[in-house]
Amino acid sequence: MYHMKNDRRNFIKMAAMAGSAAAILPLTASGTEKKVKVSGADYSVLDNVLKLPVLKKELFPSPIIIEKIELLQDRKNFICRVRSKDGAVGISIGHPFIAMNSYPMFMNILIPFFTGKDARDLDELVYIISETKVKNQGIPFCVQLATIEFAILDMLGNIAGLPAGRLLGDVVNPEISIYLGHWLTELRKLEPEQSLELMYQDAIKTKAKAVKIRAGRGDNLASDIDNAPGRTEKLIRMAREKFGDNMVLMCDGNGSYSVKEAIRIGKILEEYKYYFYEEPLPWDWYQEQKHVEQALSIPMAGGEEEFGIHAFRYLIANKVFQIVQPDLFYFGGMIRTMKVARMAKAAGLRITPHMSEGGLGFLYMLQMVSVCPALEKFNEFKMFKTLDANGTVIPIESKAEKFESIDGIIKIPSGSGMGVIIDPEYIKTHKVINI
Amino acid sequence: MYHMKNDRRNFIKMAAMAGSAAAILPLTASGTEKKVKVSGADYSVLDNVLKLPVLKKELFPSPIIIEKIELLQDRKNFICRVRSKDGAVGISIGHPFIAMNSYPMFMNILIPFFTGKDARDLDELVYIISETKVKNQGIPFCVQLATIEFAILDMLGNIAGLPAGRLLGDVVNPEISIYLGHWLTELRKLEPEQSLELMYQDAIKTKAKAVKIRAGRGDNLASDIDNAPGRTEKLIRMAREKFGDNMVLMCDGNGSYSVKEAIRIGKILEEYKYYFYEEPLPWDWYQEQKHVEQALSIPMAGGEEEFGIHAFRYLIANKVFQIVQPDLFYFGGMIRTMKVARMAKAAGLRITPHMSEGGLGFLYMLQMVSVCPALEKFNEFKMFKTLDANGTVIPIESKAEKFESIDGIIKIPSGSGMGVIIDPEYIKTHKVINI
Repeated sequence: MYHMKNDRRNFIKMAAMAGSAAAILPLTASGTEKKVKVSGADYSVLDNVLKLPVLKKELFPSPIIIEKIELLQDRKNFICRVRSKDGAVGISIGHPFIAMNSYPMFMNILIPFFTGKDARDLDELVYIISETKVKNQGIPFCVQLATIEFAILDMLGNIAGLPAGRLLGDVVNPEISIYLGHWLTELRKLEPEQSLELMYQDAIKTKAKAVKIRAGRGDNLASDIDNAPGRTEKLIRMAREKFGDNMVLMCDGNGSYSVKEAIRIGKILEEYKYYFYEEPLPWDWYQEQKHVEQALSIPMAGGEEEFGIHAFRYLIANKVFQIVQPDLFYFGGMIRTMKVARMAKAAGLRITPHMSEGGLGFLYMLQMVSVCPALEKFNEFKMFKTLDANGTVIPIESKAEKFESIDGIIKIPSGSGMGVIIDPEYIKTHKVINI
Repeated sequence: MYHMKNDRRNFIKMAAMAGSAAAILPLTASGTEKKVKVSGADYSVLDNVLKLPVLKKELFPSPIIIEKIELLQDRKNFICRVRSKDGAVGISIGHPFIAMNSYPMFMNILIPFFTGKDARDLDELVYIISETKVKNQGIPFCVQLATIEFAILDMLGNIAGLPAGRLLGDVVNPEISIYLGHWLTELRKLEPEQSLELMYQDAIKTKAKAVKIRAGRGDNLASDIDNAPGRTEKLIRMAREKFGDNMVLMCDGNGSYSVKEAIRIGKILEEYKYYFYEEPLPWDWYQEQKHVEQALSIPMAGGEEEFGIHAFRYLIANKVFQIVQPDLFYFGGMIRTMKVARMAKAAGLRITPHMSEGGLGFLYMLQMVSVCPALEKFNEFKMFKTLDANGTVIPIESKAEKFESIDGIIKIPSGSGMGVIIDPEYIKTHKVINI
């Protein structure tokens, strides 16, 4: 089992290198030489998939005019409600810890732009607003864009009687294996024993087959400073000992390292047979990240801080990572994420979207990954917690099956839209913000 | 005169290419081969200048504790007021059209971070907050960071009895030549004749020796679509005819073009002896921009949408532009801009900061450029307009000399801090936002 996983890891990397095994890792027509030169990257294949439509407009024969868009607030928490001219409603919950920093963009930019538009033009609307609002670009803007897109997809799913994911693609992943990306950011400051025990408890609850630990200080400063001397090395070793050879283990650097230290830590991860190695360098150190990638055999993952299609196009064409991780919120929603997934597929790479803790993140994630091509086997999961930005549990009821992890596997919800009913009493605690 | 300018243009580019003429364009120790390979860029020289301190701490022997930071609001407009433990005060005006989209970041992130800190540690404070708040990164965050930095520099300048610029360097540019970057964004939609006439009036008022026109649709979509067929070609030709051979002309593409069209337009600019060619491609098309740069002999300018030091490090090391244009607000203030200026100098390139219209932009600009190494001869100017976000003229009084453009040259104000007193009655129309 242990070696099988190790073989699989090498296999991912080798497939990307050698252009083999097309059935499992779809490759580009032009081949997939791994150590591609920057100037020689083949962008034409990626540009072709970027042109493909995402939203299945054919599901909606008549215009669906977005008549009203409301942002509701209760202290730090935000809810988006959209209503069509014909009375269809869609609801989403804002990002749990960024919405409060950028909600004026929702009011000043997104409401005026989306109001009165035909929701069937969502591809084009998302493209225009994300690419032209240059001075407002960034994660905080994309978080608001994702919020409105999720509400519109909820509304469209309710109209079509289909889960939101189905509006964007065919269900290629009716269930997914999870990896535990622990919700407690402060994990890094705990003793390795303590932090591993917390993850262990979650692993028991979910029977997850994969767990991700956090290396370094996670400061995005390439400081090479650990929270305690030797803490990361100890954590890497102890995680393998605690979870055993059958557990798939990943490691997230969150920008802790410079190139040299990133490679040193990577070699230790290889020694302990880790599955992937995430973002050891600050996110925008693209060329340095390519150096690290080339120096290691462990597959590398990254991209959660990206907000630009063009940036992913570069990262994918140049195979800076083997596994790309757009965040559904930070990257501005599902339509844009689908474009990244398609590029990853075209380049023989994989995608596993990043997920913040809290809110309804896991719901949006499940809709997305259900239809995601080139999906990595394991997908981030931070428990079925629905804490909102005020620390209140968002009361939701599934429209269909229960949300549960059985043997580390979660079935995609089959209810319409985002698959849940949010308790109207909870929504009532939020007041509409007036422009 | 005409040919002299043209010679100078070629000279800038050639100096950067050949490593000659060190007296005018300081070059790196490692030489400045223009068509440097991406993988071969010499980053060590840049990394060395990045380590140098910016704020002259030696001017302040005792701690200056930032005791109180307030954000004041009047509808769309924001004012920042900082107060030291010893009662010194600094004031800045928020960005005229982005502050209203991201002011919660000021409240939620910047006030808690800067309160209680020693203002003498400003270099380190700016570094930490700009590099670690990864999920909030982008122009909207940097605009808030710049606002607080300007207020702190105003306070420090008032304490030291020095203009803000002098806190960051020696005055190497006691006066600057302006170029008119017209304040009317809608200029693009006017007939070439009309838009040129508006610029002409400004040129008469200021006696500016340089004018920048706007090409294409300015959509950041690389659409290659003009607002009217042939409008840009006509504008380029007519601007030369209207202003004559003695006027220095620049052209800004604002992301209108794909590579092929960018080069075609660039060749026309060369034909009409334009001085620089700004941002023809969407800002994050780095590799494509390098292709355009290599295909043209006209110096290229860009960088106004950047918010990362690491991005400028890449752009400068690889000489993607000959002239870099960080925006004081979008890039998060003067300390970070000084780091870009130093990198530009080390690489034999030039800097001319970008400036948004409105607010007190020109004041901040004047302080910055007064101490900027490797400053491009012509600097952006959008008239002495001080319209705030609500369209109200900000009533300011210079502490020293009058603000005026004489023969297209503006003297750097010598008053302390940002050099002005803002009418207290105006400030009173703004109310402190409570956290």
